[in-house]
Order: sequence, then C-alpha cells, then structure tokens
Amino acid sequence: MTARTSRRAFLKSSIAAGAAGAAAAASGAAGATPDPLITQVQPWASGLGDGVDATPYGLPIEHEGDVIRRNVEWLTADTISSINFTPIHALDGTITPQGCAFERHHSGAIDLRKEDYRLMINGLVDRPLVFSYADLERFPRENHVYFCECAANTGMEWAGAQLNGAQFTHGMIHNMEYTGVPLRTLLEEAGFDPTGKWVFVEGADASSNGRSIPMEKALDDVLVAFKANGEALRKEHGYPVRLVVPGWEGNLWVKWLRRIEVMNAPVESREETSKYTDTFADGSSRKWTWEMDAKSVVTSPSPQAPITHGKGPLVITGLAWSGRGAITRVDVSKDGGKTWETARLAKPGERMALTRFYLDTTWSGQEMFLQSRAMDETGYVQPTKAQLRAVRGLNSIYHNNCIQTWWVRANGEAENVEVS
Amino acid sequence: MTARTSRRAFLKSSIAAGAAGAAAAASGAAGATPDPLITQVQPWASGLGDGVDATPYGLPIEHEGDVIRRNVEWLTADTISSINFTPIHALDGTITPQGCAFERHHSGAIDLRKEDYRLMINGLVDRPLVFSYADLERFPRENHVYFCECAANTGMEWAGAQLNGAQFTHGMIHNMEYTGVPLRTLLEEAGFDPTGKWVFVEGADASSNGRSIPMEKALDDVLVAFKANGEALRKEHGYPVRLVVPGWEGNLWVKWLRRIEVMNAPVESREETSKYTDTFADGSSRKWTWEMDAKSVVTSPSPQAPITHGKGPLVITGLAWSGRGAITRVDVSKDGGKTWETARLAKPGERMALTRFYLDTTWSGQEMFLQSRAMDETGYVQPTKAQLRAVRGLNSIYHNNCIQTWWVRANGEAENVEVS
Repeated sequence: MTARTSRRAFLKSSIAAGAAGAAAAASGAAGATPDPLITQVQPWASGLGDGVDATPYGLPIEHEGDVIRRNVEWLTADTISSINFTPIHALDGTITPQGCAFERHHSGAIDLRKEDYRLMINGLVDRPLVFSYADLERFPRENHVYFCECAANTGMEWAGAQLNGAQFTHGMIHNMEYTGVPLRTLLEEAGFDPTGKWVFVEGADASSNGRSIPMEKALDDVLVAFKANGEALRKEHGYPVRLVVPGWEGNLWVKWLRRIEVMNAPVESREETSKYTDTFADGSSRKWTWEMDAKSVVTSPSPQAPITHGKGPLVITGLAWSGRGAITRVDVSKDGGKTWETARLAKPGERMALTRFYLDTTWSGQEMFLQSRAMDETGYVQPTKAQLRAVRGLNSIYHNNCIQTWWVRANGEAENVEVS
Repeated sequence: MTARTSRRAFLKSSIAAGAAGAAAAASGAAGATPDPLITQVQPWASGLGDGVDATPYGLPIEHEGDVIRRNVEWLTADTISSINFTPIHALDGTITPQGCAFERHHSGAIDLRKEDYRLMINGLVDRPLVFSYADLERFPRENHVYFCECAANTGMEWAGAQLNGAQFTHGMIHNMEYTGVPLRTLLEEAGFDPTGKWVFVEGADASSNGRSIPMEKALDDVLVAFKANGEALRKEHGYPVRLVVPGWEGNLWVKWLRRIEVMNAPVESREETSKYTDTFADGSSRKWTWEMDAKSVVTSPSPQAPITHGKGPLVITGLAWSGRGAITRVDVSKDGGKTWETARLAKPGERMALTRFYLDTTWSGQEMFLQSRAMDETGYVQPTKAQLRAVRGLNSIYHNNCIQTWWVRANGEAENVEVS
C-alpha cells in the first residue's frame, strides 16, 4: 500500500529524539510538547523580507559566516607570501565558489585592469606577439571544469598529524569551470619553432613566479583563462588572465599571466629548483613532479564537521581527484584501513576535476578511524602514509597524497591522527 | 617549419591596429611607438599586493562592478515582490555564481536560520513527519547541475522588442550545481498513499508561494536542496532549503521550503490560476505549463556587449537550454533568419542545464541581424516570434521562448529589434 525504505527505523529514533515535538505536532499525537516552530506563526512568515535591490552582488548569509578561507598564522612569515585554505569541510558537490577558493600568493594579489593587461609571447617564435585582453577575446574559447591543487597541500602531514581539520590538511584545492583560449592556439599564432621544447611562463606580479612547462603539455590542454564559474576571475585568482594547467601542481597555474617564452631548455628558476622539488630521504631532490597523484579525503565527518546526531543513519562524504585522469573508484574504511567499503560517486569521474563521493551508512555509535582511498583510470591506488614515507622519506614538503585518517570518537568529535 | 592558423590574418590587422606599440616592442621593430605597458616597470610588478587575510570571503574586483543583478524599476510596484536579472551578457561558461544569479520574490527574501528550519510532510501519508535541517543531512544526497528559469523570462517580448539587453530580455535564469535529497526519498519515508496524485509545496515566507506538482514529477527528479555551487544556498535563493524542479518553471522551485502535502487533486492556488497560466488570443487560459521549452539567446555581441574591435575575427556566443532534455544543436543567423550556421557546443548538452555555444566567425563590418535557434533531444526546434504569436496570441506573459534578434550596426553597437 505504501512505499517503505530502510531509513524508516532512523526516523523512529532520530526524529523522536531530535524533533519530537515537531513530529508530534505534525501527526497530532496527544501528550507531546508542541514545537512552536510548527504551531506558531513565525516572524519570517508574517512580515516582508529583502527586496531585489538589496544585494546587487550577494554574499553568503551571515549564519554561514564561519564558512570562509582561513590562513594559519604560524605557517608563513607574512600573509603577502602565504596561503589560505578552502573550507572544504563545509562544502558539498564539486564546484568551489571563487569567494572561498584557496589563495596562494608569492608577493600578494595585485590590482591589474583589463585595459592595462598585456600578454607577450616571445622566444623561439616566427614573430613575437603582444596580446591585449580584447585580442584574447577574439580567439575560440573552451570551457572545462578542473581542480587546482597546491603542491604543498597536505604537506604538513609528512611530519605526522599536524593540522586539525580537512580545511587545513586538504584545503589548498579548488575546482572551477574555466573559460579560456587554448595556449596551443596562441603559440600557433606566434608560429613556434619546433626546436622549442619548453615554454617559460611568468606573471605580472613582483614575484613573477616563473615556471618552465614542457611544450608537449603546453600544446595539449593548457588554457589561457579569463573566466571561472562563469564570471571574471577574482583579483586573488589572477584577474584578468591566469594560466590553467590541468592536473598539474598549482604553482604552474600562473596568475596575472604576463609572458610566455618559447625556449629549447627549461629555465630552472627559483620556483622549480629551491622550491617545488621533492626532497628524498638521502637529501637528493627530484627535479620535476608536475602531476598531482590520485588523492582523496573525507570532508564530513571530520574535525571541523563532527557528528552531532548520535548513532544511526550517517552520510560520510568527501572529495577525490587525480592529475592523471578520472577517478574510477573510492573506498572508505571505518577501521583505519583493515576493511573497506566502496563509496558511491555522485557522478562518473571527470578528468582532472574533483569527484564527490558518498557512503550512506549506519553509525554504531562506536569510535571510527575513517579513511578514504581513491583509484584513478590509470589503475593507480592512493597510498598509505607509511607506503609514501617508505619511498620518499620524511624530508619532503610537496606532493603528499597519502590516505588521511580521522579518529571519530563515540561523542562524534573527530581528530587528525595517524594509524600504524 | 612553424605551425600556422587561419587567424594569422587577424593579427596582422588587429594587433597592428589595436596594440601596435606593444607588438613592435615585442618584436623590436624600429619606428613604432613603444607601449609603456611593455617597456616600463609597472607598479603592480614592483610592489606588494594583498595578503591572504584580505578577503576571508571574496567579492569580484571593483573593475567588474557593473556585472551585477539589476532590476527594472517600472516593471513592478515594489522591490519586495519583484525580479532582478542575471548579467548573462557578461558571463561565459555555464555556471552562474550565486552572487549574481537572478532573484524573484513574492514577499521578499527572509532570514531563516538552520536551527529554526522545519519541513513538514503531511496529507495522504502513513504518518506526517517533520524534518529538521539536521535530519535532512542524514539522507542520501545527489549532485546535479540544473537551470532555473522564471516563467516570465522574455515575457515583455510578447508586446514587441521592449527591454534592451540580454540581461533584461533573458536574464531571469541561472544554472547551478545543486546538492540535495531526492523528494522521492522523503515521500517514501512518510509512506505516501498511492491515491495521492499531487503534492502541494509551500515556502516559509509570507507569500508561501504554494504550488501543486504532479506526483509523477515529484517522484522523478525533484530535489530538496541545501547547497548550490558547493556552498549553502544564499539567503535570496532560499536558505537553508529550496525545492529544485528540473526543467520546470522557476515559480515551482519553492524557496525556504516549509511544507509538502500529498493530495489527490491540485490545490489550484493563486500562483497557478490568476498567475502562471498562459492566456491565449481568445482570452481563455491554459491551466498548466510546467516545462520550459527549448530556448536560446546570443549573449555577446548584444546591446550590453557591443563589438568594439572592428571587422575581422569575432566570437559570437550564447546560451541554450530545454526543460525537456538536452540541447543537441544550436544554429546562428547573421541575417535575421534567412541563412543559418551551426554553432559549436562547448560541451555535449546536459539534461535541464545551460549549454554554452560559440560561433567562431569573421565579421565583415556590415550590420547583422543576429539570431540563435536551439534544438533539443525531443526534436523540438525553437520557434520564431511570429510562429509563437500565431499559436498563443498576444495576451501571454509567460513561456515566451521565441528566437531573439539583435540588430548589430556597422559601428558594433547592438539593439533589441523584431524582424518580420
């Protein structure tokens, strides 16, 4: 006669516990305390709200005032060359709004008007060119959703469980829909010399953040982008033009893009020698590590998103991504990696974009050691912290894609821990 | 020896004209006026920018201060029961940021905290239920990108070319990635009676905006949503919970969702009788018009986005959508519908979501009568204004999905016109 689901048991307990008065008011049961939010007319239902002229450009409601980017004061000497973190513990879906998408600057976010914007392509080309912003708008554009992850994301975890919260351990990442011109189109316009095997890209800010990119990648999927999530790039994301280097470390995604030089060798600049190289146990360094390996994290429950409702139905959710292609599977463990359950992907994985996963489960009320483990289309499986340390040692800062563990206690609170 | 493209001719003319000094500076040509933006060190390259603590939640840069929602003062008696419009002429890609996504309120945007939120399901159910916000978070969630279009979008065009600008003629639409619980799940939880063929949905604001929805749709793809583009719904979009009714008119997407009653007949409320019905030439009205038919518009060039660069390469772009499925093709005409060219879709069309199209073309410098024409997976072709009027007459307000014409003059400026 009526449709039924396995969640019925949940409502018998949780609504009875959490919103008992409300449930009673709805069903007209005698004896229960009426919920005034149901039985009384509320002010928002008896007065007028804001008119459509109130917010020409809107911000989140004040009740969400804690869902913001946060920096960690002791992490850097100054906020000018620093990082803040996306509040991934409080987000769902896959798109990151620009307003709370992490920032990384080397000399601060600059103010550069479209009218003052120039992009030079020089070096091993038929003829050097300079494009104005208006010039760039005249080339065929593409739209793609890509993640941008800082190479240092999760970097503090090399030294053990340090920062308490998914925002801080994994929040140097965002995922947006970019609109831009393929770099290939602009290089072809300048007539690049086939002996040019590298491009050197730099920004208009004081740091210039110069990086070398192999020509093969430059001609593949790199975008010269001017929109993110439909609108202009925000100042802190490189307005008016940034480079988008799908799947590769965020430091290559040069903001306020000023110049692209075609070269026959890499520059070996500061940003790719003393920084953004991976140091091994013996003190030697691996020169180039461009791709971001497959990785995942449970965003809720997590230290900033504890369980508040007691045992019973629980949605475990998180994000997975790979710089080498699409995510094909995510497993979740509640016991620190001894046993695994395959999570549900909200959508089939897309190449170089965040994938949302869910495990719709029932919580026993006992402590959990929550982990997630991503797999990508190359067959790669996200490693444990111990596996990664065995190969890389403890001297690294960058490219830590290890499995993360949250210890969820019986009271629902969670903590960043290591399991052996 | 070097790669070449057909756009080379463009740069010979446009860069020489538009950024001649810059091009010369880049190539070291003698005689040209050097561009100081290339030859001199700029302030943004010699000083520091903003630190990462400057914008815990960011807004667009001030130079984009005109890319905002706008209302039209004479359109409604008061801003409390009114509309503002998405600046679609200035956006690209498909995602609409919440901050500039159009609003429609019937009694203003209300302030409703998660703690005070209740959702009742009553009527023909095994047992009425009341859900708190925390209860909703315990059900399995889905993620989908959907457009939401007001039934009155383009409604002024029934009377001829009225409002000058894509923002005003077609801006009552937005497109976001929603996260929510399928309404079906909640109805099954309450145990709906199979004699219940309709649900009546209403909001917590003073207008309540009650609407009847057939059970078949309610059980299909309707979401009880709490996130848009990853983050909490904004106040003006129904914080903390709104209904998402894919492909159907925006008035059904009840904000601040308060109650869902399972009924055996529609309520025939104010919002579905005196409003949101389509009046025909003879004065009779069609009761239900839920689906938004296939439609498209050129967003650039358009009256608010004129051509500023003269003849030569030109990117014509716009949006297409259908409430009956995926967009399969968009054609563009430069001569008011006499001849058509098939545009490039940025991605394959997705069901009930905006599709971005591009026509990468060369402008002769002559006037154009720009049009776009969408086709969807049902085989439906977007009609001309004359075809629509022949069926619907001139008394309608809602569901105007006719082909739009922009008259682009030789000076690049554009105007909303009708072609016979």
